[in-house]
Amino acid sequence: MRSHFVLFGDSLTEQSFSPGGWGASLANTYSGKVDVIVRGYGGYNTRWALFLLQNLFLGFSKSYIAATVFFGANDAALLERTNERQHVPVDEYKENLKRIVHHLKELSPSMLVVLITPPPISEEGRKEYAQSLYGEKARKLSERTNEVTGVYAKQCVEVAKELGVPSINLWSKMQETEGWQKKFLSDGLHLTAEGNAVVHEEVVKVLSEGRLCALRIPYDFPLESEIDEINLEKSFQEQRCKLDGLL
Amino acid sequence: MRSHFVLFGDSLTEQSFSPGGWGASLANTYSGKVDVIVRGYGGYNTRWALFLLQNLFLGFSKSYIAATVFFGANDAALLERTNERQHVPVDEYKENLKRIVHHLKELSPSMLVVLITPPPISEEGRKEYAQSLYGEKARKLSERTNEVTGVYAKQCVEVAKELGVPSINLWSKMQETEGWQKKFLSDGLHLTAEGNAVVHEEVVKVLSEGRLCALRIPYDFPLESEIDEINLEKSFQEQRCKLDGLL
Repeated sequence: MRSHFVLFGDSLTEQSFSPGGWGASLANTYSGKVDVIVRGYGGYNTRWALFLLQNLFLGFSKSYIAATVFFGANDAALLERTNERQHVPVDEYKENLKRIVHHLKELSPSMLVVLITPPPISEEGRKEYAQSLYGEKARKLSERTNEVTGVYAKQCVEVAKELGVPSINLWSKMQETEGWQKKFLSDGLHLTAEGNAVVHEEVVKVLSEGRLCALRIPYDFPLESEIDEINLEKSFQEQRCKLDGLL
Repeated sequence: MRSHFVLFGDSLTEQSFSPGGWGASLANTYSGKVDVIVRGYGGYNTRWALFLLQNLFLGFSKSYIAATVFFGANDAALLERTNERQHVPVDEYKENLKRIVHHLKELSPSMLVVLITPPPISEEGRKEYAQSLYGEKARKLSERTNEVTGVYAKQCVEVAKELGVPSINLWSKMQETEGWQKKFLSDGLHLTAEGNAVVHEEVVKVLSEGRLCALRIPYDFPLESEIDEINLEKSFQEQRCKLDGLL
């Protein structure tokens, strides 16, 4: 059975198979080697995500070799603003992340779990987006701020350190590039094609550092160029032996 | 456990998660409902594909609700040309397709198996591609012709009729559009973004006609808008009851 990566998160994961999405790119990078499974839940915070855990990975545990956990953008929604109901206090966010990591590690102790912080927020971008939807009636105050989201990002990295798992500080990383607000974010929060490319690149980097470099994972079938068309059975037999470490 | 679609085929399937690819688009269309699993093997013909069958669907049979079988582009490679070793006589191609369908149906009798014919060939496109790689040394004769590939496409549709499974005649469909040679094919054989869009649209159409319309498949979790943030347990409980047909 082929190995799996699972992408667990909110809309930033849910949309990762849209055109140019980081999930589809990851599936392409590991083509023929690992299946990439999306478990993205638009609008979810970590509190709600906990309710999904029990049913999420039924029957698959042994084949899961890596997971990305990409939450926080909704937890960081502000109180007393339009998305208030998504808000989760930062201490609870930390605790919830820990529970998610523990759950995944319990399922499969060798699974590489990667925490990804929320991306930065362009408050201007959020306002423009609200105006494009609601015109004059749009809210005047963004429902998220970059500063508060940064607090969640910092704590996400902190949790990763505490638990000894790798993390990607997307909030910091993206802000290193001038013009990140429009370059990486389509509506001040969700990812453009270039933003998706950043996530893809960072995830591949972390997976490779964690001994899951695509080049090191063997194909479970012979490549066309390795097929001896006169002696087919031998070609497929040899590949099986290679995988079993017999060749 | 979530249901699966499996995409079984050659490079046209293998590349279906590249940017704009039809597999990634399919995963996006069925996001949150069905996992799309790629089993694409670049350069493979149906003869070689038979060797993969036994190991391909281990442990998954019950969750597979649909499969695309998309071979023929390599089987139709001409004898006495550069890709001769990929050639499979058309009668054997038919027989191999039947064996693949039977195998899938044996695994899961209710699985919707969809046969896809190879796309048309632009011989001019193949020649240009060879020239871009090899310059003056490029072969003068294309290793595939549209006419011969059309014979394989016709037989693929025939097999589908014989077995009572749906098919997509991509070879005919694409040629209905003027300028299909460049519009749908990047190198006279593989798909452009627009070519991928045609495959995606046709596959979604056939799946929908086969009672697998994305809108009809329930989410296995509550959408954010359905979550009662005061009474979380109830929201998730209700969703489980809906899925079990108790609500």
